Amino acid sequence: MSTIVNRRDLDFLMYETHNLDELLERERYSDYDKESIDAILDLSQSMAQDKFQPFAGYLDQNEPKYIDGKVEIIPEVKEALNAYKEAGLFASGYDYDMGGMQLPCVVHQSLSAIFVTANTSVTNYIFLTQGATNMLNACGSDELKAKYMPKMVAGDWYGTMCLSEPQAGSSLADIRTKAEKLDDGSYKITGTKMWISGGDHEMTDNIVHMVLAKIPGAPAGVKGISLFLVPKHRVNDDGSIGEPNNIALAGLNHKMGHKGTTNCLLNFGESGDSIGYLVGGENQGLSNMFHMMKEARVAVGMAATVIGLGGYLYSLDYARNRPQGRHLTNKNPESPMVMISEHADVKRMLMTQKAFVEGAHSLILYAARLLDEQVSAESEEEKTKATLLLELLTPICKSWPSEFCLEANKLAIQVLGGYGYTREYPVERYYRDNRLNHIHEGTHAIHGLDIMGRKVRMADGAALKALALEIKKTISAASAHDQLGRHCQDLGAAMQQVQQTLESVSQAVDPSLALANATIFLDAMGHVVIAWMWLKQAVAALDGQAKGNANDAAFYSGKLAACKFFYRYELPKVKASFELVSSLDDTCFNLTAEEFIGH
Amino acid sequence: MSTIVNRRDLDFLMYETHNLDELLERERYSDYDKESIDAILDLSQSMAQDKFQPFAGYLDQNEPKYIDGKVEIIPEVKEALNAYKEAGLFASGYDYDMGGMQLPCVVHQSLSAIFVTANTSVTNYIFLTQGATNMLNACGSDELKAKYMPKMVAGDWYGTMCLSEPQAGSSLADIRTKAEKLDDGSYKITGTKMWISGGDHEMTDNIVHMVLAKIPGAPAGVKGISLFLVPKHRVNDDGSIGEPNNIALAGLNHKMGHKGTTNCLLNFGESGDSIGYLVGGENQGLSNMFHMMKEARVAVGMAATVIGLGGYLYSLDYARNRPQGRHLTNKNPESPMVMISEHADVKRMLMTQKAFVEGAHSLILYAARLLDEQVSAESEEEKTKATLLLELLTPICKSWPSEFCLEANKLAIQVLGGYGYTREYPVERYYRDNRLNHIHEGTHAIHGLDIMGRKVRMADGAALKALALEIKKTISAASAHDQLGRHCQDLGAAMQQVQQTLESVSQAVDPSLALANATIFLDAMGHVVIAWMWLKQAVAALDGQAKGNANDAAFYSGKLAACKFFYRYELPKVKASFELVSSLDDTCFNLTAEEFIGH
Repeated sequence: MSTIVNRRDLDFLMYETHNLDELLERERYSDYDKESIDAILDLSQSMAQDKFQPFAGYLDQNEPKYIDGKVEIIPEVKEALNAYKEAGLFASGYDYDMGGMQLPCVVHQSLSAIFVTANTSVTNYIFLTQGATNMLNACGSDELKAKYMPKMVAGDWYGTMCLSEPQAGSSLADIRTKAEKLDDGSYKITGTKMWISGGDHEMTDNIVHMVLAKIPGAPAGVKGISLFLVPKHRVNDDGSIGEPNNIALAGLNHKMGHKGTTNCLLNFGESGDSIGYLVGGENQGLSNMFHMMKEARVAVGMAATVIGLGGYLYSLDYARNRPQGRHLTNKNPESPMVMISEHADVKRMLMTQKAFVEGAHSLILYAARLLDEQVSAESEEEKTKATLLLELLTPICKSWPSEFCLEANKLAIQVLGGYGYTREYPVERYYRDNRLNHIHEGTHAIHGLDIMGRKVRMADGAALKALALEIKKTISAASAHDQLGRHCQDLGAAMQQVQQTLESVSQAVDPSLALANATIFLDAMGHVVIAWMWLKQAVAALDGQAKGNANDAAFYSGKLAACKFFYRYELPKVKASFELVSSLDDTCFNLTAEEFIGH
Repeated sequence: MSTIVNRRDLDFLMYETHNLDELLERERYSDYDKESIDAILDLSQSMAQDKFQPFAGYLDQNEPKYIDGKVEIIPEVKEALNAYKEAGLFASGYDYDMGGMQLPCVVHQSLSAIFVTANTSVTNYIFLTQGATNMLNACGSDELKAKYMPKMVAGDWYGTMCLSEPQAGSSLADIRTKAEKLDDGSYKITGTKMWISGGDHEMTDNIVHMVLAKIPGAPAGVKGISLFLVPKHRVNDDGSIGEPNNIALAGLNHKMGHKGTTNCLLNFGESGDSIGYLVGGENQGLSNMFHMMKEARVAVGMAATVIGLGGYLYSLDYARNRPQGRHLTNKNPESPMVMISEHADVKRMLMTQKAFVEGAHSLILYAARLLDEQVSAESEEEKTKATLLLELLTPICKSWPSEFCLEANKLAIQVLGGYGYTREYPVERYYRDNRLNHIHEGTHAIHGLDIMGRKVRMADGAALKALALEIKKTISAASAHDQLGRHCQDLGAAMQQVQQTLESVSQAVDPSLALANATIFLDAMGHVVIAWMWLKQAVAALDGQAKGNANDAAFYSGKLAACKFFYRYELPKVKASFELVSSLDDTCFNLTAEEFIGH
């Protein structure tokens, strides 16, 4: 079996659960049908298996090195990226007008995800390039786009995002990088940027940095941030590479995971001028950056999900082939050993992984579908609904897989036992890689504040209402099936508790106390949303069962079991969480720094 | 502040919570008082800080190498171990009759723990040597003891435990290593042992392996396992080192954490005879090994706890000194930033770490105290009670910190944000190191089966009754304080739910189904026990407060807050877990291997 993708499940999620076939009927995607998409996924899977997966462990153990001011990366990385480029896959992330393939986001995210599972570190270069390119396309001037975009779309040049600084991680209000306007309309950029993935390397002729900086005299805080395109090498008018743009590599960060991606501290304008070009209006940097971040956050959720998937598939394959021990009731030590997939606790660990990973996967594809709705829905009303749902669900898409698919990775290690804890097997690498996802693209806490402080209340609660309505639709479809009756009740009750919790909290006199347990709310509301996703899948599985394809019998009954598992083992946990959040507990909130250890 | 130990809290736990002063009055420990123990802990702390902590990160990044059949380890490891040896600290783990210090286990575990936090990988050599030595002392012949023990007690030779084999991890019934009796009464050992920490190196003149093997003709399964002492180098009658004993280093395992400890695959008797000596009776190997494992399991729990402590202290120190962002209600970006310890979610993450780590620490010291009771209690009744409680609590001591102090380590990374994810800071190393603790010394699942299938039922439920009685005593003491009234009720109710759950489950027709969710029971019962530990600490804190030392005001109010935190944020979670276990849910249990992915 493939350990990077379960194509049967991907089909189930894309077509049977989220009706991709319906989407493909729209004008915008009329060049595609299931067959052509299958072909793209086949190509992706075989390239990921042949060119990306084989050296993922080796790359992890041979991370980029800083030598004489340059970054050395093992050659396999460039070879893999070149194969990806030569197959034209960089174009999978763009529309026709940019020279792209104009794939549904559902398909683009799915094909990208196959490569993430195969070799996360390598795909970061692709992901960042596509993000920078889309940002440039959305906000840049025609001149700037003409000069940079074709090279980026083709994958000749890579891109990066330069937001954080050593003193300002989550707090972008406090960035210090300065952009001083020059006579020709360009800007001189001075400052230090931290945590820049893909920030320097020799794999491409140029690297296009998208940099947040402040123009002197701009308003304080986030309102005074502007976005600049700052290339590693300046580009001549004829498009050829000009002189270096004086971006000094000050050092590499050495991470616990994602070790194959060079992660840099960059000094702009230290050894000479670093010239940048304004992207979008002055002081519009943050909103321009966030424009791109919407999809990026969904993509981070997808990465967290499929890193979880990699661990799940690997540990499942292992468990089905590793003999050890006997059934509990068999006391004869001379009887043959059974595969460990026969042991109850191994089953529980595999099922937990399945429920987390496939539940998250469904949510991410649903969100990708909403992104597709935003550009293809046939009415304004549908577009508005998609936007509302997407705004509300984005913090969950980003955060829930980061938390629970990491938990899945922890269990994958456990299934393999001592072997899982060694670098000879990939599951510990997945665990290390996935731990990043709570931190970047907004920390877990920031998404808690986002959903509870903003998203549930936006447009007079319209997003939450829209979600409640969608959930009701699923419950209504599910109620036709007796065996889902109890789940329908439980989901309805949980959604009611979400609303009651928000009501209780809205009574708080101190708005900071109201948000003090926002992270707990985020995780619990995520559980409710994933329970919804499992009910959706259960309905789809019952529909599939009714069609009576014997080959799919085990697949569908596994889906129904996973749904039941989530409702019995996981959803009941949210009650205590919502009660806690409702109570406006101030135990942590009121604590002084001294009380932790007494001085 | 020290980032490896909080001496104020250690004092609180040892003396104020668990009455070490009372223990020190007993004959067995009459050479010690608080002052002399302080001096031992002072020495340990300064040596750990000076000789162990400084190179922990460097060792992690420069793990032992296999070169020409030998293991190369950076010289700092031997230097640190020699300092430990020269200070006589190897003797801290033994009684006077072995040439040891005869410290209370409470103190021995505490001083050892300081070194674990400072540099886990190095301390594994000490821990294994002390375990092997105690096993030899308990079960070995006088002749064998005379020949090997003095060198081991002094720390001149190190020891190992050789249990697992490549095909038999958790399933010791299936080990294949063979021991054939020779004419002189010794045995020829043949076979392969896996996961041997400290299995080979050049730091000592000899390594003493304690090896499980089967004598031809012995009963099948665990009843046919015997224990052997097999030295790396044979030892002449005069105690000098003889010829090599032909134990070949077949390879090193490369772990995610504990990277500084050499972990080996060893071949016995491949290139010549490996001679071993029976320890204890033939076929008594497993019970002899388990004799040692009791304390080892408590020690693993201590290691998991203090690796959690290291992350907690480091992230607390960081949070109190890292400025970033402003209070939520402060919208002025020109106002100064606050320390991140001011942010509500950072407080929550620090408090969660505190509650997990200090709760676990209290439990481990309680268990260590029970070990002391076993050898020093003044009545047989007290000894029996200590044994019962220890049997019941050992699976929790080993497992609860492995799960929840790992969770603490996850949060320590989060407090540091991007920095926490890099190897420039120790918190990611703690996270990697701690992940081992679910796996070794019995996996998490095995301890679930142990507690639910054996320990709660042993001696007609006497252990569980003894625990319930102890908890009642604490509740009774706590009820004198109004502010603990609610906690008393909650703990009483939770303990009742433990008993109800066990009753429901005992109705199961299929004993395997009854144990199918034993891991969930283990974690939930652990939560109840830790809640008890927090109530104990709260009573001690109120007693301390009553004494009115102003210096301790913040310390005690922090303790009371942590107790409240555990009762409000954590204990309510167990309800759903116990309900699930009671329901004898078979969702995972009945699943076939095909249902996971459909084929």
